[in-house]
Amino acid sequence: MATDVSADTVMQRCMLLGGYSEEVGRLTRPFASQAMRQVNEVVASWMQDAGMTVHTDKVGNLIGRYEAQQPGAKTLLLGSHLDSIRDAGKYDGPLGVMVALASIERLHVRGERLTFAIEVIGFADEEGLRYNYAYVGSKAATGTFDLEALEFTDVHGVTMSEAILAFGGNPDADILRTANWQAADLLGYCEVHIEQGPVLEARDLPVGVVSAISGHTRCVLTFEGFAGHAGTVPMAQRQDALCAAAEFVLAVEALARSKTGAVATVGQVTVQPGATNVIPGVVKLSLDVRHPEDTVREELCEQLQDRAERICADRNITLRWQPVQTSRSVPCDPHLAHLFEQAIEKTGYPLLSLPSGAGHDGVPMSSLTGVAMLFVRCAGGISHHPIESVSEQDVAVAIEVLENFLRLLNTETEQRGALKP
Amino acid sequence: MATDVSADTVMQRCMLLGGYSEEVGRLTRPFASQAMRQVNEVVASWMQDAGMTVHTDKVGNLIGRYEAQQPGAKTLLLGSHLDSIRDAGKYDGPLGVMVALASIERLHVRGERLTFAIEVIGFADEEGLRYNYAYVGSKAATGTFDLEALEFTDVHGVTMSEAILAFGGNPDADILRTANWQAADLLGYCEVHIEQGPVLEARDLPVGVVSAISGHTRCVLTFEGFAGHAGTVPMAQRQDALCAAAEFVLAVEALARSKTGAVATVGQVTVQPGATNVIPGVVKLSLDVRHPEDTVREELCEQLQDRAERICADRNITLRWQPVQTSRSVPCDPHLAHLFEQAIEKTGYPLLSLPSGAGHDGVPMSSLTGVAMLFVRCAGGISHHPIESVSEQDVAVAIEVLENFLRLLNTETEQRGALKP
Repeated sequence: MATDVSADTVMQRCMLLGGYSEEVGRLTRPFASQAMRQVNEVVASWMQDAGMTVHTDKVGNLIGRYEAQQPGAKTLLLGSHLDSIRDAGKYDGPLGVMVALASIERLHVRGERLTFAIEVIGFADEEGLRYNYAYVGSKAATGTFDLEALEFTDVHGVTMSEAILAFGGNPDADILRTANWQAADLLGYCEVHIEQGPVLEARDLPVGVVSAISGHTRCVLTFEGFAGHAGTVPMAQRQDALCAAAEFVLAVEALARSKTGAVATVGQVTVQPGATNVIPGVVKLSLDVRHPEDTVREELCEQLQDRAERICADRNITLRWQPVQTSRSVPCDPHLAHLFEQAIEKTGYPLLSLPSGAGHDGVPMSSLTGVAMLFVRCAGGISHHPIESVSEQDVAVAIEVLENFLRLLNTETEQRGALKP
Repeated sequence: MATDVSADTVMQRCMLLGGYSEEVGRLTRPFASQAMRQVNEVVASWMQDAGMTVHTDKVGNLIGRYEAQQPGAKTLLLGSHLDSIRDAGKYDGPLGVMVALASIERLHVRGERLTFAIEVIGFADEEGLRYNYAYVGSKAATGTFDLEALEFTDVHGVTMSEAILAFGGNPDADILRTANWQAADLLGYCEVHIEQGPVLEARDLPVGVVSAISGHTRCVLTFEGFAGHAGTVPMAQRQDALCAAAEFVLAVEALARSKTGAVATVGQVTVQPGATNVIPGVVKLSLDVRHPEDTVREELCEQLQDRAERICADRNITLRWQPVQTSRSVPCDPHLAHLFEQAIEKTGYPLLSLPSGAGHDGVPMSSLTGVAMLFVRCAGGISHHPIESVSEQDVAVAIEVLENFLRLLNTETEQRGALKP
């Protein structure tokens, strides 16, 4: 049972990597940190043991290359990220790198090479913890890096440019804006990642194929009423900003429920003046709306804005609706996704295609090549939390599916040829 | 037009007192502060000029006594507080002391004494800013002081006991637990205060008579759901603590509206984890419920608790309902209130009796003697804010009403006698 052995190794490695942290007693591994340097060294040694040539690129992405049968072949990219949020779980990111590495190790122990080369990437930053700027790794790798981010500073006043240099990278503008690969040389980018949601668990499935990485809209809403003494202003004469905001929170829930596949969340609320005995004068809240289809998301946002305006008009409250960020949906490459489905079918498990509500490195990678993702069930759908967990059995399935995927792609490229143009 | 001159003086004095602050650029006058010492000195000099004998008591309450025609007469207490909240207006408290002082000055210029003595009190602490403990002044004056408060510390670590000593008071337990007066020697305690609400303005009235100081119930509610990724947990699988809290906020509004005279307010809200992209796991909010009738308030609280429990049961949310503070309603003395009504009738203005939703020194004073209050219209119903304002015309009416009140009480005591028992 080679499969089980590998899954056990992947579990142990995730546990071991989880010990490399910037903070004592909890896992916090920011971009270009000492903990990240240690993780890169450890993973690089495993990659080398698996017959890969290893280097770190301009921002510290760790890249191990497993050559093809012949020179001049195309390359398949596999990977995920090795950084973490503050007080993180051990699987969000590292699991995908470890499963990819396990699939290479299986080829390596058999002395097997495919018709295409494989590069396993451990991205240096996906979460954006250190600079509040996500996808440093995949944006630099795809040449879509926003150069102004180089001047962002961390909590210690260190600029991103300085951090990249100190990590041994190269923050040169031309280099950052050049992709690591030629698009024509690539077969695609495939990532294994924990689901970070409860859908697979609810369906009793170990894995699922991602249909699209949902686009999102983020807004900040400000409800401005009039503060007053909680004891002396009669109910009928109030302009309570919190009551208007509460009506909106329930409208967000109801409207999102009315659209299949949509999620909408109010995650932050601040109330001013915020005293027990004062009627709320100003309430500020965050809104996060996601859907795999951009048109549905846009329609939902319009309905929500319309609803907020009506609530405020009825209550004599002033509304400020500030769009903060929008990202378009990234559909997964249909052909790669189909290969993943065939790979799952071979395991005997039922198929489930589901959108990813969370963002992933596939978003920047899609600017360069087709992307596909395999989700692995996580307990309770919980992630971004130290109790985040996956089962060894499910990891074994993920390794088997990725192995099947590589064989299917190999068969296909044997027939069609996998040489660079 | 002696009336107008006095109102002008009261306005100027409130303005002048508003300049004595612990903070530059805004009015903040805590208990036993240097600013309070300065105010006591200034007001004491005005009291002396008005023929009063002046002293400060064990906690720094400033008390000026205007003797009766004869020794052995009973005493009427007038007053309000001279401390303030942080970034306060100029009238909440000082106006009542200044109007009382003006009424004494009018007697003094005419060389007139009444059948009862009058003591004008400037309470040293009603707002509770420094020690987060309200009514230090009137609780000490009535011997209802909670001795454990002596060990409370301010932001600089100074205990209340130390602050009282430094201010020249006496924090001796026996003295603090002894009232300044014998109940049988008093005719009552009457206070002029700004309304701090919009009712008089809405009725186009300069003054109104308080029927009762409403009791209140304060609770802290904790809604505990389950945090999760805003992008990955489908709407149907969420336990969003904020949605439950929002439903409750609207229930508070609706139920309070359904009971005449009730007010209920959610003034504080905290959301955890409080991130844009995380479903709220825990929401904590404050609830403040008031009504002039205790039974109605208690019934409303029960309905609200019942409603909160049903909301949480429906949403699979855990509710924690913590009572924090309850105070019973203090009905005003019917006889004194009636004299105020007659005093208003003499001015030709229509009568309005209204509850006080805010707490006042009358609450502790009611443990010793009958209390009555005259409310003065304030612009927009706004108080606890630097823009708090009253008009000179309304202050003139308040002075006239208080003067009429004193004459009515004088006539009555002339007939019935006002000697101490």
